[in-house]
Amino acid sequence: MSERGSIGPVEARHLVFTEPIALAAGISLPVWELAYETYGELNAARSNAILICHALSGHHHVAGTYAADPKNVGWWDNLIGPGKPLDTNRFFVVGVNNLGGCHGSTGPSSINPATSEPWGADFPVVTVSDWVVAQARLADALGIDQWAAVMGGSLGGMQALQWTIDLPDRVRHALVIAAAPKLTAENIAFNDVARQAIITDPEFHGGHFYRHNTRPTRGLRLARMLGHITYLSDDQMAEKFGRKRRPDAGSYGFGVEFEIESYLRYQGDKFASWFDANTYLLMTKALDYFDPAEPYGDDLAAALAGARAKYLVVSFTTDWRFSPARSREIVSALVKNKHAVSYVEITSPHGHDAFLMDDHYYHAVLAAYLQKISL
Amino acid sequence: MSERGSIGPVEARHLVFTEPIALAAGISLPVWELAYETYGELNAARSNAILICHALSGHHHVAGTYAADPKNVGWWDNLIGPGKPLDTNRFFVVGVNNLGGCHGSTGPSSINPATSEPWGADFPVVTVSDWVVAQARLADALGIDQWAAVMGGSLGGMQALQWTIDLPDRVRHALVIAAAPKLTAENIAFNDVARQAIITDPEFHGGHFYRHNTRPTRGLRLARMLGHITYLSDDQMAEKFGRKRRPDAGSYGFGVEFEIESYLRYQGDKFASWFDANTYLLMTKALDYFDPAEPYGDDLAAALAGARAKYLVVSFTTDWRFSPARSREIVSALVKNKHAVSYVEITSPHGHDAFLMDDHYYHAVLAAYLQKISL
Repeated sequence: MSERGSIGPVEARHLVFTEPIALAAGISLPVWELAYETYGELNAARSNAILICHALSGHHHVAGTYAADPKNVGWWDNLIGPGKPLDTNRFFVVGVNNLGGCHGSTGPSSINPATSEPWGADFPVVTVSDWVVAQARLADALGIDQWAAVMGGSLGGMQALQWTIDLPDRVRHALVIAAAPKLTAENIAFNDVARQAIITDPEFHGGHFYRHNTRPTRGLRLARMLGHITYLSDDQMAEKFGRKRRPDAGSYGFGVEFEIESYLRYQGDKFASWFDANTYLLMTKALDYFDPAEPYGDDLAAALAGARAKYLVVSFTTDWRFSPARSREIVSALVKNKHAVSYVEITSPHGHDAFLMDDHYYHAVLAAYLQKISL
Repeated sequence: MSERGSIGPVEARHLVFTEPIALAAGISLPVWELAYETYGELNAARSNAILICHALSGHHHVAGTYAADPKNVGWWDNLIGPGKPLDTNRFFVVGVNNLGGCHGSTGPSSINPATSEPWGADFPVVTVSDWVVAQARLADALGIDQWAAVMGGSLGGMQALQWTIDLPDRVRHALVIAAAPKLTAENIAFNDVARQAIITDPEFHGGHFYRHNTRPTRGLRLARMLGHITYLSDDQMAEKFGRKRRPDAGSYGFGVEFEIESYLRYQGDKFASWFDANTYLLMTKALDYFDPAEPYGDDLAAALAGARAKYLVVSFTTDWRFSPARSREIVSALVKNKHAVSYVEITSPHGHDAFLMDDHYYHAVLAAYLQKISL
């Protein structure tokens, strides 16, 4: 095995929970299921477990490949593995698909036991705090009383932050990457345009498209195209695409002409071909609702007063979805509480998507922080 | 009449041109029509005429009201009138609806003489240079050899700039407001999402929705919602809407909940109820194609070398659609040519939409510049 190797083939697992989970929306799921993966081994003291929380379109397949599908590489595989920044020779890493997801955990495309049909639009809206509860049940089942760390980027970073507020005794470190303490009006506005694209697609059928044997691919495609613009930086788009035309493009028409159009439509088509539209709605709503300071009179420092974790907060210079200023709001609230926090602003051309990239300096920062975590 | 008054009731006029116009797309319109309005009086020397060019969703009704519809106030009425910055006691002001528009000028909803049906998708893509040609024909008809000034904001500012390149002897001053010398990949990306929303709406019928007696309102609504986000500043949205909820809003659902959602959906609905979808497509394409430097090896200074006008370039600090940096590109190319140019960067919270607003300092700058124009 090379010093900095791939995990190799991994297997997705499923856990069925028969203890009901009461969700913020006021609905309780009597029986529910989580899809998850683990990498590395839990040590005898059960002190080396790290939870990876996924963002909007992510899932539990975080690292490695599948034996039957070797090209299906986990979304954070560049970060996780033997000798990698998140070293699986040292840590036991858990990836999980969140409730409401479309990758094996209970979600809108699962069967609603009350109707024996897919939940569809009847699946309850889930919140970041609901996910913390569900993830804690998974931790219980795996025998993990306390995570060495909970980490994630974007919406995943929000879950890491929420863990330290909701279950402060169960997490020693939180790695909050490319996140924000709450969405701005502009963030919500983009999400709402995406949702309206899906909801007004005639194939959406009020969220019950499964029973019509169809899918709102047009709306989902638009939602993803729009989302993608906000994941990239203006600079990066300028450099990568600029005003370049497709070599085979016509002109004075509405077909694909500029390279950027080709790229976005391709990304939209690809995503719409497999992602669940109801899950997309739920994930954007969880983003909109995330606001841990709200129950504390909009005082984020007060919300974090009871936290006991240590923090690494990371932002990226060209991220305009959740800019460095938003990460600094989190840092500021932590500093007010005299919580231990390291903050790094990474110079990157890759916008919000930078948290997924294999940037040397970024990974060196994560490696340095993770190495110092005592087990 | 008050010192700074309204123009009062005005009338839209129509001119039919029987001399064909050859468009950049390679198509010629044998007979075509422009809707326009005029305010003030052309002086004996015919030296006091100012052309106002409209932006994406604008039209020829720039100032005043209609006797039969007194609430229908022109879109730049705050700027134009007796005693206003663009003083109609001094200037003869012309507003025009561009070719391809949906307010009375020949466009996709006009009858195609070849088929006796609306043009629809068969209406040719029009460019900013095409509009300059058409506007020059209108000037000819009105007896205006040379405009005292051509001015506009956003896409309107691009027309003002193009006038000075294409017909340098026919324009003495160009007021280029909240514009850019060409769109970035990100700008084009937003336009393409908007276009795809319209084109993939099942009611679009390949652009021939007129014959199906329907309209792609869903797509047009999404396009406008998205556009609106890019017209406002993040700061302004934060201040005006923030995370405020609607008082009557439910929660944990997908109805209107945040104020920003209510605002955007309302704007989208209103716009979709009347604007022509094919015109929207054409206007965004004119924006994407606008790139006067392209035929000059991407050298904007070279493109402007033959210009003879004097310039006022205005940008707004919080405009992220066409940021001050984009206006400075224009200024820089003018300075290289030693053309006379004044540049003002206005501090404004209103984003791109600031060019439409009644800001004291902004209007004072325009008034000062316009007063110095010799007739």
